[in-house]
Amino acid sequence: MTKEILLAVLLAAGSQARAQATAPLTARLGKVSLTVALNPDGRPTYAVAFGPKTVLAPSRLGLSFADGKGFEGPLVLTGSETKDVDETWQPVWGEVKDIRNHYQQLTVHLRQPAADGRKLDVVFRVFADGVGFRYEFPRQAGLQYFTVQDEFTEFHLPANHKAFWIPGDYDSNEYAYTTSRVSEVNTTPIPAIQQKAPANRVQTPLMLKSDDGLYINIHEAALVNYPALYLNVDTKTFDLTSQLVPDATGTGAKAYLQAPEHTPWRTIVVSDKAPEVLASKLILNLNEPSKIADPSWIKPQKFVGVWWEMQTGRGSWNYADTFNIKLAGTDWRKLKPNGRHMANTAHVKQYIDFAAAHHIPGVLVEGWNVGWEDWANNWKEEVFDFVTPYPDFDVDELQRYAAAKGVNIIMHHETSGAATNYERRQDNAYRFMNAHGYTSVKTGYVGKIIPRGEHHDGQWMVNHYVQTAQKTADYRIMVDMHEPVRPTGLNRTYPNWLACEAARGNEFNAFSEGNQPEHETILPFTRLMGGPMDYTPGIFKLQNFEPTGKRLVHTTLAKQLALYVTMYSPLQMAADLPENYNQHLDAFRFIEDVPVDWDDTRILAAEPGDYLTTVRKAKGKDEWYLGSITDEKARQQPIKLDFLTPGQRYEATIYADGKGADWQKNPTAYRISKQVVTSKSALTLQLAPGGGAAISFKPVTK
Amino acid sequence: MTKEILLAVLLAAGSQARAQATAPLTARLGKVSLTVALNPDGRPTYAVAFGPKTVLAPSRLGLSFADGKGFEGPLVLTGSETKDVDETWQPVWGEVKDIRNHYQQLTVHLRQPAADGRKLDVVFRVFADGVGFRYEFPRQAGLQYFTVQDEFTEFHLPANHKAFWIPGDYDSNEYAYTTSRVSEVNTTPIPAIQQKAPANRVQTPLMLKSDDGLYINIHEAALVNYPALYLNVDTKTFDLTSQLVPDATGTGAKAYLQAPEHTPWRTIVVSDKAPEVLASKLILNLNEPSKIADPSWIKPQKFVGVWWEMQTGRGSWNYADTFNIKLAGTDWRKLKPNGRHMANTAHVKQYIDFAAAHHIPGVLVEGWNVGWEDWANNWKEEVFDFVTPYPDFDVDELQRYAAAKGVNIIMHHETSGAATNYERRQDNAYRFMNAHGYTSVKTGYVGKIIPRGEHHDGQWMVNHYVQTAQKTADYRIMVDMHEPVRPTGLNRTYPNWLACEAARGNEFNAFSEGNQPEHETILPFTRLMGGPMDYTPGIFKLQNFEPTGKRLVHTTLAKQLALYVTMYSPLQMAADLPENYNQHLDAFRFIEDVPVDWDDTRILAAEPGDYLTTVRKAKGKDEWYLGSITDEKARQQPIKLDFLTPGQRYEATIYADGKGADWQKNPTAYRISKQVVTSKSALTLQLAPGGGAAISFKPVTK
Repeated sequence: MTKEILLAVLLAAGSQARAQATAPLTARLGKVSLTVALNPDGRPTYAVAFGPKTVLAPSRLGLSFADGKGFEGPLVLTGSETKDVDETWQPVWGEVKDIRNHYQQLTVHLRQPAADGRKLDVVFRVFADGVGFRYEFPRQAGLQYFTVQDEFTEFHLPANHKAFWIPGDYDSNEYAYTTSRVSEVNTTPIPAIQQKAPANRVQTPLMLKSDDGLYINIHEAALVNYPALYLNVDTKTFDLTSQLVPDATGTGAKAYLQAPEHTPWRTIVVSDKAPEVLASKLILNLNEPSKIADPSWIKPQKFVGVWWEMQTGRGSWNYADTFNIKLAGTDWRKLKPNGRHMANTAHVKQYIDFAAAHHIPGVLVEGWNVGWEDWANNWKEEVFDFVTPYPDFDVDELQRYAAAKGVNIIMHHETSGAATNYERRQDNAYRFMNAHGYTSVKTGYVGKIIPRGEHHDGQWMVNHYVQTAQKTADYRIMVDMHEPVRPTGLNRTYPNWLACEAARGNEFNAFSEGNQPEHETILPFTRLMGGPMDYTPGIFKLQNFEPTGKRLVHTTLAKQLALYVTMYSPLQMAADLPENYNQHLDAFRFIEDVPVDWDDTRILAAEPGDYLTTVRKAKGKDEWYLGSITDEKARQQPIKLDFLTPGQRYEATIYADGKGADWQKNPTAYRISKQVVTSKSALTLQLAPGGGAAISFKPVTK
Repeated sequence: MTKEILLAVLLAAGSQARAQATAPLTARLGKVSLTVALNPDGRPTYAVAFGPKTVLAPSRLGLSFADGKGFEGPLVLTGSETKDVDETWQPVWGEVKDIRNHYQQLTVHLRQPAADGRKLDVVFRVFADGVGFRYEFPRQAGLQYFTVQDEFTEFHLPANHKAFWIPGDYDSNEYAYTTSRVSEVNTTPIPAIQQKAPANRVQTPLMLKSDDGLYINIHEAALVNYPALYLNVDTKTFDLTSQLVPDATGTGAKAYLQAPEHTPWRTIVVSDKAPEVLASKLILNLNEPSKIADPSWIKPQKFVGVWWEMQTGRGSWNYADTFNIKLAGTDWRKLKPNGRHMANTAHVKQYIDFAAAHHIPGVLVEGWNVGWEDWANNWKEEVFDFVTPYPDFDVDELQRYAAAKGVNIIMHHETSGAATNYERRQDNAYRFMNAHGYTSVKTGYVGKIIPRGEHHDGQWMVNHYVQTAQKTADYRIMVDMHEPVRPTGLNRTYPNWLACEAARGNEFNAFSEGNQPEHETILPFTRLMGGPMDYTPGIFKLQNFEPTGKRLVHTTLAKQLALYVTMYSPLQMAADLPENYNQHLDAFRFIEDVPVDWDDTRILAAEPGDYLTTVRKAKGKDEWYLGSITDEKARQQPIKLDFLTPGQRYEATIYADGKGADWQKNPTAYRISKQVVTSKSALTLQLAPGGGAAISFKPVTK
């Protein structure tokens, strides 16, 4: 369908709605405007514009239920109201100190045609940088328990935009992004990580750029008690239709709900400036306020850990090489140690020593607990018990040693996808953590989910992640989830949920063909729109780090430093080995210095797939940290320092790509320089191919 | 296929096996003999005889795997061995003090034809009263993790026996038994309780009687980590083929296993005397010994409770009549009480008073915890939290009151089928029990299972029940499960698992058309073969007990007393209301007196569907208790008292049907008489239609 025809449909829909009830309903804030109408066939649609430009042509709304009596057919508009909200709130931690929540809300009341028909509200919030809307099912006699079979929400693009997308695998987000026209979306050639997706199915956040200069991001906010939203792309009409992740029953059921209830918010962030998409707080604003009354125990943090050496194949999670092990009945002390088990007491102490020496508060230890001999790919339920250490890991001694050095050991709970096994053991696992001084846990969901037939991104698992955030909070535990559904801003509601992986992390450089240099310029526009990512930056040994010497980290060393600023997270790993950091302690100084919590953030330059420069102000201090990255192309990045406090002199320590630096040929070349600057200064950063730069700005006090 | 042709096949199979490897393999004990052979096509078969009579004609063995490389095709016999075992063990509680485990074991080693083919053992145990066998998957390089797709075990009956069966509903056993010829098995006319079964699918334990006088029971023992066995009946050939309960994935997968592993035992109990089937300990013998090192805290017990008044509709589990409630976020104190909530502090105290006055150690309270407003039929996960009482149930006060009176309150955990919700809350629920003095819990699984798509009788739920038995044991809690898979003797291994419902209990008389008078004469031959049942006998007000006055208990009062002996359980409820017991305290005396643990048991007379007389010797005392029941027909039951200790005089208190007693017309007529008897005495009991008799024999000391 062309844009012209679509507009005609919109006008027709408008007059139909008027005939039925009222004029098309509208809401607006700044340049963003929304129009809601009933189609001639009685089905509701919405459309979004940015100034004069169409963001979404009229797009269908609706849902069907398993009982056959959903909201897919004609509906009656029974009323509507608007309200304006402008408030400011403070996150427990974040990129900025204050977040403005400014929107115009339009609530549309719909009903099935019969007088006693079921009622549905669609609530829209129009922000200056986009629109969020959700379906709400009010309390009503005719609708109590119901099953959503399908959601018919559409996002009808008016033209063949450029898209940054990953395949619609219900069980993994760990894909490299493809950049293509919408008409060229085709997942067929992409190897499946867990599950082959239909050729036209992609995941959100979906980043789009129009030829007329709009940057558009489609995602969702506050995904609770509902499956994740996927998008089926019509490569001819550019209509994106909703695909919800099905449950295990094979009936096509998507969500089991009880009224009053609502769906997550469907979000469209839009701007004509790429940095404004990154600065958007629309998704956070659509989430509920924190449920944690006293968040004093929640601490953004950096950590090192026993991890990269297993990712690169130098060591093992497993204690023995005796495979085919059963959790119950195995006498772990009788197994023959393989000599490569990294989570042993002496080795962990080395990490604790390094962390203490460099003011890194956390040490992650993976492979501490029994079960790793048989952990993956067996769809096995009783994989781990989360409380039994391997014979060479002394829980009590390490608790004592770490405490004496002021370091926290970070617990690790890999579930192997067996969420049921984890759930039945969570209380005891968290009690074990409380008893042994662990305040944070990294969880993992590698592999096919149990309950068998469920998906990582289905309603049941979505509830599992949220319940896990709540339960860890009950035990005053911070959590970092790997392989969950991609985030939707729930870190506002559960600020102990510090980060997720849920995307292709730095680790892929360790064990695969790697992440292309553009990868980290796309992630902030896609995955990070939903929340912080535990990307695990900070690799200093960028080549020859694994036994075969074939793999590369696809960045320069300076770019690894820049990622601590460009990839926002309150939880940041310094992922390389202490021995590699010890070779470059001058560069490691940036990792020591860089904060993980901020009072302010400015996106100075950004283009998805190309480059990104971000500067952030440290929490409670007049210090600024800048990260600048490029894709495979060398770039000059001019920077105006007008973000600095006027009149204050700062020492800028610049960690830049060195002469001849190149992610492929010479990634470790870097140059550290210092200069005194003010808010009137300007810099020009020279970014190498696959390179970057990091700068700390600290006030000169004398 | 006729019996003659089958025998010819057996002979052919025998010679083929001889040609391949050896003569047909045999084992024998007493009259029971077993023959194992390879068919001409290389598939293994087994056959069972009782003396000269065929119990099972040659019947197929085998399984298929999801990977396509199972044991459904031709196999090679690589060896076999036999051993004889004769040992005696003592159960923690039971019908007898000592159990003899006497069998000849035949282990058959099979292999897929290729030299490196996968290996399978079939282990048979031949007892004097039947055969048990199971598939064992030894540790081997070629078979580690595997998925059982189907099991091809057959039970090929040689003729058109009489069968006592219920439909093959994967989610409920709560059916009345149909008695028919095998050729007439047809579940079509039977209303489904949870799930309509194919016309020819029935459940085990399946009781059969042959025209040549054999009583045969087919079931399984030690059902762990595997789905329940159902039987597809070929109504033409009388071949019973295995049907395992599938998992949720819709792929037909039945069991996810890891070698070394084995299936449950498939059991065939056979005798030419019906009482010997009831006396069989074959299924218990095939279970593993107790896992509980110190069972001193496990106490067989009687109980009363807040229950029958809800079953009959006089009161409610729910506190309010405000339906459509959510567990989280509801302020229960603000709900309007409906005035019919039975689990209130004052009412529970009345039960405690009655229990204390009559030496009943337990008081069950159902409906004490929030969530009952919305508990059933919604496939809802967050139904109950198991720790929050209704506003009118004072946990601390009742703990104090019950303790002061020497009574234990029995905890109740209805899950509404949401096993996942229960699992994630079990630790906290059991800690709550420990903290508040509860030593026993009755669990329930009414409704469709969550994980959605799983069945009550599938592998996942089978593991849930076993894990629940283990976890309750970890907390020193005794458990009584309602709506689990039917038992398979696991009470030997987990003696804290006192009883299950898993059949159509006395409660059906409260809320349905009821249980026909023959029902309790069949249950011991079917459901009770697997273990104790919480049948909840002891109803004294047999008519006009519910608001409409339409329902009947289908027995006389005397038969209700007899059930305490004929329906073996270490956990027996006195299910009626104290006010009804107070009308018949002379009859209630038998319930007060009758033990729940025994040193000896004799089945004096039995015919499934017709009658049953059982006498048991109290644990550690020279007291005997007799129960005698009939179906809808009046009977004279002669009893020789030669079980009594010779030379000892006993006072026999006989609770008999009174003059004119009849389950329909005059169920409450009973007569209590006393007489002094010795081992040389004889009695003739007059059993009314639907009637029974109960007798206590206590030594006369003077």
